[in-house]
Amino acid sequence: MSAINQGGGRRTGVWLVGARGSVATTTVAGALAVRSGLAGTGGMVTALRPFADAGLPDLGELVFGGHDTSQVPWAKKAEELASAGVLPASLLPALGGELAAAEREVRPAPVSGHPGRDADQITADLLAFAERHGLDRTVVVHVASTEPATVSHPAHRSVDALQAALKAGQDVLAPSSVYAWAAMSAGCSYVDFTPSTGARLPALAELAAQQRVPYAGRDGKTGETLVKSVLAPMFAVRNLAVTSWSGVNLLGGGDGATLADPAACASKAASKSAVLEHALGYRPAGPVLIEDVPELGDAKTAWDLVTFSGFLGARMQMQITWQGLDSALAAPLVLDLARLTARAHQAGHHGALEDLGFFFKDPHGQGPHDLPAQWQRLQAFAATLSAAPSPAPAA
Amino acid sequence: MSAINQGGGRRTGVWLVGARGSVATTTVAGALAVRSGLAGTGGMVTALRPFADAGLPDLGELVFGGHDTSQVPWAKKAEELASAGVLPASLLPALGGELAAAEREVRPAPVSGHPGRDADQITADLLAFAERHGLDRTVVVHVASTEPATVSHPAHRSVDALQAALKAGQDVLAPSSVYAWAAMSAGCSYVDFTPSTGARLPALAELAAQQRVPYAGRDGKTGETLVKSVLAPMFAVRNLAVTSWSGVNLLGGGDGATLADPAACASKAASKSAVLEHALGYRPAGPVLIEDVPELGDAKTAWDLVTFSGFLGARMQMQITWQGLDSALAAPLVLDLARLTARAHQAGHHGALEDLGFFFKDPHGQGPHDLPAQWQRLQAFAATLSAAPSPAPAA
Amino acid sequence: MSAINQGGGRRTGVWLVGARGSVATTTVAGALAVRSGLAGTGGMVTALRPFADAGLPDLGELVFGGHDTSQVPWAKKAEELASAGVLPASLLPALGGELAAAEREVRPAPVSGHPGRDADQITADLLAFAERHGLDRTVVVHVASTEPATVSHPAHRSVDALQAALKAGQDVLAPSSVYAWAAMSAGCSYVDFTPSTGARLPALAELAAQQRVPYAGRDGKTGETLVKSVLAPMFAVRNLAVTSWSGVNLLGGGDGATLADPAACASKAASKSAVLEHALGYRPAGPVLIEDVPELGDAKTAWDLVTFSGFLGARMQMQITWQGLDSALAAPLVLDLARLTARAHQAGHHGALEDLGFFFKDPHGQGPHDLPAQWQRLQAFAATLSAAPSPAPAA
Amino acid sequence: MSAINQGGGRRTGVWLVGARGSVATTTVAGALAVRSGLAGTGGMVTALRPFADAGLPDLGELVFGGHDTSQVPWAKKAEELASAGVLPASLLPALGGELAAAEREVRPAPVSGHPGRDADQITADLLAFAERHGLDRTVVVHVASTEPATVSHPAHRSVDALQAALKAGQDVLAPSSVYAWAAMSAGCSYVDFTPSTGARLPALAELAAQQRVPYAGRDGKTGETLVKSVLAPMFAVRNLAVTSWSGVNLLGGGDGATLADPAACASKAASKSAVLEHALGYRPAGPVLIEDVPELGDAKTAWDLVTFSGFLGARMQMQITWQGLDSALAAPLVLDLARLTARAHQAGHHGALEDLGFFFKDPHGQGPHDLPAQWQRLQAFAATLSAAPSPAPAA
Repeated sequence: MSAINQGGGRRTGVWLVGARGSVATTTVAGALAVRSGLAGTGGMVTALRPFADAGLPDLGELVFGGHDTSQVPWAKKAEELASAGVLPASLLPALGGELAAAEREVRPAPVSGHPGRDADQITADLLAFAERHGLDRTVVVHVASTEPATVSHPAHRSVDALQAALKAGQDVLAPSSVYAWAAMSAGCSYVDFTPSTGARLPALAELAAQQRVPYAGRDGKTGETLVKSVLAPMFAVRNLAVTSWSGVNLLGGGDGATLADPAACASKAASKSAVLEHALGYRPAGPVLIEDVPELGDAKTAWDLVTFSGFLGARMQMQITWQGLDSALAAPLVLDLARLTARAHQAGHHGALEDLGFFFKDPHGQGPHDLPAQWQRLQAFAATLSAAPSPAPAA
Repeated sequence: MSAINQGGGRRTGVWLVGARGSVATTTVAGALAVRSGLAGTGGMVTALRPFADAGLPDLGELVFGGHDTSQVPWAKKAEELASAGVLPASLLPALGGELAAAEREVRPAPVSGHPGRDADQITADLLAFAERHGLDRTVVVHVASTEPATVSHPAHRSVDALQAALKAGQDVLAPSSVYAWAAMSAGCSYVDFTPSTGARLPALAELAAQQRVPYAGRDGKTGETLVKSVLAPMFAVRNLAVTSWSGVNLLGGGDGATLADPAACASKAASKSAVLEHALGYRPAGPVLIEDVPELGDAKTAWDLVTFSGFLGARMQMQITWQGLDSALAAPLVLDLARLTARAHQAGHHGALEDLGFFFKDPHGQGPHDLPAQWQRLQAFAATLSAAPSPAPAA
Repeated sequence: MSAINQGGGRRTGVWLVGARGSVATTTVAGALAVRSGLAGTGGMVTALRPFADAGLPDLGELVFGGHDTSQVPWAKKAEELASAGVLPASLLPALGGELAAAEREVRPAPVSGHPGRDADQITADLLAFAERHGLDRTVVVHVASTEPATVSHPAHRSVDALQAALKAGQDVLAPSSVYAWAAMSAGCSYVDFTPSTGARLPALAELAAQQRVPYAGRDGKTGETLVKSVLAPMFAVRNLAVTSWSGVNLLGGGDGATLADPAACASKAASKSAVLEHALGYRPAGPVLIEDVPELGDAKTAWDLVTFSGFLGARMQMQITWQGLDSALAAPLVLDLARLTARAHQAGHHGALEDLGFFFKDPHGQGPHDLPAQWQRLQAFAATLSAAPSPAPAA
Repeated sequence: MSAINQGGGRRTGVWLVGARGSVATTTVAGALAVRSGLAGTGGMVTALRPFADAGLPDLGELVFGGHDTSQVPWAKKAEELASAGVLPASLLPALGGELAAAEREVRPAPVSGHPGRDADQITADLLAFAERHGLDRTVVVHVASTEPATVSHPAHRSVDALQAALKAGQDVLAPSSVYAWAAMSAGCSYVDFTPSTGARLPALAELAAQQRVPYAGRDGKTGETLVKSVLAPMFAVRNLAVTSWSGVNLLGGGDGATLADPAACASKAASKSAVLEHALGYRPAGPVLIEDVPELGDAKTAWDLVTFSGFLGARMQMQITWQGLDSALAAPLVLDLARLTARAHQAGHHGALEDLGFFFKDPHGQGPHDLPAQWQRLQAFAATLSAAPSPAPAA
């Protein structure tokens, strides 16, 4: 803990992997806007009543930074997001100065081709960030492009094996896992907001235990899957058999382009399917399709056709069209997760935060996949946090 | 009580007001089909695990009867329902005999124009039905056409005032309430499956207390409102503001024709709107439209447009098209309610059964309107019933 | 007439009734943007090849003016339209000056309560406008709010009867018809872009003949009805019987508020239904609903459910959701109609322009209602205009 | 012409390749039902007025036969189609006898693995069929499963080259083309109702010319593409730029299973895309997806999202959900094509019948792809047929 914050214990870093992407830009611009009183907290779950006394860090106590391979300035990205309807155009002039200041903490993502060396660089960047800002703790949030599924490797089984492989220069970790390794090594907590592997390896679970840091994930539940996680339980409690559930997701933006890669798409689709199987107890027929339509930009359209069978086998159906702005849906959840994970870290939680399943398509642990049950568990977690000793707010 | 059932206490009458309508016909045909092993229990909530030990009467222990002004035989109605896809055509020959036998208990609905006299006739019919079949208790379920909202009247305030008004030949009760009065007078429990007034008058609450009978209602939650009751809480827990929710219901069949009457439509629409207000804490803009399209028959199509506002005011939307067969959705719930209400009666519950809010658009009491919370409460109720002493099954 | 145009005959006035509304504002701002090269001609039918040689006035030759009861400045209206996605926000600074200049020709709509006196004022305003700008001719386009249907009156039967009634101070004309009378009296052509009565009275047809001016209408076909006018013929030529066609239109903005008035809504719904009856040869079951949802603003959502019957009576269906920006759809058609009507006037056409049915929900004459046939007729008309003598372009 | 029909010239064979599939079964059952007066002509284009005097063979003059590899009897297939809503259940008992009689003309499809030998067998079957029934001419209609696209081969270039290759036992023809070759060799006309190659090879065009037989195709336009062929021209004539058009087709039945094969799916998707490119003049972004969902059976659901850009670049969209029963849509068109092609043959037409583009997704020749223009051309063709000498009807 730095001298600066001796009485506080509240300065929290939020380090965004993929810092120049749509989600990260919306997260930072949004946090600045909310704390300046230029926008409300709509979309932020932690702004709801159950979290009022949970001792979460305020938005004003968050300090942002991050890594990205892109060089596109936030101001330019913010303009794109404004023309897509994600950010209000009126916000840009007001935020310009603060955004430019925050942007000084965006570092080039190391891509040496040597995971061990990259990890060391990331750890160093995180420690220097904490030092510069006198941070009590930092949450690293992965919001970069979805990667193909990781191929299993013996080095994933333990901290020692992984450390040896990295030292030997072996290319055994996907970038998202390199960040998880580096974050935990620096004593930071880690959140997987994408379906990439990230912290989901035995060696990283072991490292989190050693370092006593918490982690959460995976794959933020922002749109179609969110809807599935309330509709599927509805069919279940009404004893209506879902005979098929087909869905197509049309999206542009960077995410659309990434998911046009069949390997990345497959890991996303797998993550999206899990919710039905868990909520219904079986996997209904029907595909989960993800297609890149660049013309749609950040506005994602998902259409689902659900056929179901009722009393005496009567055949019925429903269709859902969801038209969301993915970054606008994701960004407030990134802030929620940063706040909750930082507070959990401070309150002594470590390892996988299974109580945060509410936020994810493919949550850690054996917890529920239906939203109402996840919401109950999250509220109970908030109550636990409320009861935990809380540092005095920053002076 | 007949000698046959002295040790049992399990023979349960189910008396359907509107016995020749689509819902009642599907209920009876369905119950016969399920207990003959010709169909499964899909759509029946009480067939799910939490109710396995709740001591509910089996379908084989139910005896059906009812009132109707229509004379259309069940066999003909069943054919119509088969061509609409509600009943499997293959079921009709197999059920013909049993259906004809059950039909002997359908009585002409009294319509003397003198509510007091009608009520006496209904009470007499219910007592004779119980006598003939040696029933332990009977549940009266109102599944007749929706009525216009009842105009308030001083006679509604107490049993005594209402009794005096009825004796004086005053026309102070809507038919659904006449049935509730008559049912309770005969010691029967009562379920309002429609938005009509039924038991929802102070005098009837008082009568239920005197007679120690339970009642439940109102307006079975079968389609669009069911969906609303899971989607609205989703928006609430994600802190997404619903800026408008517009819905249109297109339906034919008898229900469509009834709801073409603006007064009946108004009471239905009011019942349908309540769920949003309760789940969200405010009433979003947008109409609830109900239109009669006879060509659609029993296949109801509801379309909803929901606009909502996310982080930084981002505007998003979803559309839902629900295409259900109303009678196929309602009938298993009628069986559920008959089983639960009869068991509650036997276990000593009386007055409004607030724990059954799961089944209704406009439930009694201050309970939750969102389906997940209602489901929890219903499960807790089932646990209570499981713990209550249960009569031995019928010999 | 100014000296500049002596040889030309090309300066054309476009006088917008309802000049401060969304459609008119988009029309003027759009025309200015296109002629300055700031925007393309997308959405303008007369920009397509068949009209290239038809001798239509260029956008640069149009001079705008109009009447309105509102005082809201165009700049403010344009801002609203930008935030609704109708106008690009980037256009506003560039157009500001020109828009303010044009706005000087917007006059307060006379509302003396005395139709005859109002008409005289309008005629005087039109003549002064032509004089000030040296116009060769002026087209008056009605884009004000929809009125309730006009009650028939004997004074509508002839010019003489109507003139007498107006002189006697009788209130026998709806405002849209007052404008039509005044426009024709001033030698101007007239276009009804709304379902209001406008020029559709025998007395006005007689006046148009006397004055040798053309007129066109009624009710611009911009959205749901446009789609109907291609889908209905599809069902017809495939010999598929449409068993029901139900539609709901949800819209905010001024138009939504106006149509919340049942009388105005009825005239709109009647206009919208005609297309099905004409294209199919029968009127399918199903309602046409129009609802005001202010939160939707200028973004109109229409949803249609079409059920149809195929070979051997097989039951099938389609659903259409149309999400259009009404002003963005209407404005280019207003420009098309102004150009075509002015050119027709110059080429000697007078009376109802039945060849313009392509643009309208409820066209004049016995012409086709299906879009493909209307398109053919419009192309033939363009060919006629191409063959007519054309004035030299303005120097 | 056979002696049997000297006065008539009207007995027409309809030979269905894939005779036991859903489309063929519906075609035959439907034709029998219509000519027995048990069903109307809904869905048959040639039942409309423009064809009344075109000299087409009556349904009563058609004699059915065909090839299939399947052995499932028509009675069983018809039951499946009844439970899927394609055939009315009430029809089956009435048609049983006639259907069984017709079924005697269904032959096992030759699958020797030797195309030349198969072709000879098919030709022999066709000649024997004509002989047995005293047919004046026969139309062979391909309604079997979609094949992968044919790989080009030098033997496709001419009749001589192809004949030599077949004699040499070379496997150079897809089954659909084997049928086309055999049909033409037997003097029969040929219709490609699927996207398979069929007659679309230079050698087969040459053979048709030699034999003076007509042929038509390809890929019956029954559902989503039909809708596209009227909506795309609507956008074109309104000068609205289609920025993306994405579509997903969910279907079960045999067709769904076939199209789950990526190669077959690719040839179908290519055929479906052509219409947009032709009608709009460019190919909008967006995928055409086809997915097998066996649970949906014969009921196909297609969903399309169309985004378009209007005046000043305003962004708008429409969605279409089409829920059709493919066999019910296809069967009447098969009858139309059989009648038209037989009459064209009789009237002396040979080669590709480009005037029948109305019926196809991927028509022969340079004709229009938009439905209205295709309809005009078809009507003109009907007028030509009306003017051609017609044989006396069968005695």
